[in-house]
Amino acid sequence: MPVETLEKQLNFLREIDRLKSVIRQSPLLDSSRKENSAEHSWHLAMYALILSEYANGPVNTARVIQMLMLHDIVEIDVGDFPIHGGASSEVQAELEDTAAQRLFGLLPQPQNDAFLSLWREFEDAKTDDAAFAKALDRFQPLLINVFTGGGTWKESGVLLDQVMSRYGPLIERGAPQLWAVCERWVAEHFSR
Amino acid sequence: MPVETLEKQLNFLREIDRLKSVIRQSPLLDSSRKENSAEHSWHLAMYALILSEYANGPVNTARVIQMLMLHDIVEIDVGDFPIHGGASSEVQAELEDTAAQRLFGLLPQPQNDAFLSLWREFEDAKTDDAAFAKALDRFQPLLINVFTGGGTWKESGVLLDQVMSRYGPLIERGAPQLWAVCERWVAEHFSR
Repeated sequence: MPVETLEKQLNFLREIDRLKSVIRQSPLLDSSRKENSAEHSWHLAMYALILSEYANGPVNTARVIQMLMLHDIVEIDVGDFPIHGGASSEVQAELEDTAAQRLFGLLPQPQNDAFLSLWREFEDAKTDDAAFAKALDRFQPLLINVFTGGGTWKESGVLLDQVMSRYGPLIERGAPQLWAVCERWVAEHFSR
Repeated sequence: MPVETLEKQLNFLREIDRLKSVIRQSPLLDSSRKENSAEHSWHLAMYALILSEYANGPVNTARVIQMLMLHDIVEIDVGDFPIHGGASSEVQAELEDTAAQRLFGLLPQPQNDAFLSLWREFEDAKTDDAAFAKALDRFQPLLINVFTGGGTWKESGVLLDQVMSRYGPLIERGAPQLWAVCERWVAEHFSR
C-alpha cells in the first residue's frame, strides 16, 4: 500500500470531522439543542439497521447504511438546506454535486468514484436502496417533530397539507408501512 | 408485521437519541468543544468504511460498521469511561453488560439477541472483525490527540510510555499498519 493512499484517506477522515459542526433545524428529542449532521447520520444508519424489514422491496441494508453515513457530507461545504426552507432545488443540487466532487475527491481511487456514485444514487432516489434511505431521511425528522410537540413545523408555521406533500411521497415510496404510521401521527398532531 | 414489533423498534430508536448527550473526553479537531458519543460512532463507522484494507486479516466491513454504530449505546446508562480515567475494568464491564441487556432488550426478537451478541463480540475483541473495530476505537482518539497538539494527553498528564501501553496493543492487534503510523506520530509528538 503506497503511503500516499493512506495519507489521503486520513486527510479525508480529518476533513469530515467538520460535519459535527453543521447544525440542522431539528432539535434533539429532549429539545435541549439542535441536532448536528454527524449525529443525525449515525441515527439514520441505526434507523436503517433496525427498520430494513419495512423497505418497499428487498434492500441491501449494508449499502443503505453506507449511503446514510455519507449522504450529508456535502453539507461541510454548502450547509444544511432545510425541508421547509424554500431554496431552489436545482441550485441546491448543483452546489451539492460540486461539494461531493471536492470532498470525495480527497480520497484515492477507487474510493473516490465509489462514494461519489453511491452519493449520487442516494440523491436520485430511484433504486430501492436509495428510495428506502431517502424515506428514512424524511421519517426521522417527522418523528422528531411529532415527539417534540411540533418542532420545526411550529417554528416555520407549517400546515397539515404541507407536511403531507413534503414528507409523504418520499416516505410512502420507500417505506409504505412507516408512512401509514406517520399519517396517524400527523392527523393526531394537527387535530390537537 | 405485528404493530407491537414496530412500536418497540421506534421506542428503541427514540431512546438512543440520548447518546447525542453523552460527552466524551476527546475534543473536535477544531477544539471548539468536546465530542459526543453519537457523532463519534458515526465517525468510527466512516473510519471502518475507508480503512478496512488495513485490518489484520480479512474482515466483514458491514459487520464492523454495525459493531461501531452500536458499540457505545451502553453509555446512555453508564456514561463514557475515559481511556485515562483509571476505572476498574471489571466493574465497568459488569455495568456495561447490564446496560446492554436493558437497552437492546427494548428491541423485539431476533434483534434483541443479535445486537446484544454483536456488542459482546466487540467487547471481547477476539474475532478479527471485533479486533479491527476495537483498533479503530483507539486509533481515532489517538489521531485527535496528535492533531490537536496533545488533547486529552495534555489534560491528564499522560506520558509516552502510557500512550504506548494504552493504545498500542489494541491498535497493533487489529490494524498493524495503522499502528506503524501511530508510532511515528507519537514519537514526533513527545519529542517536541
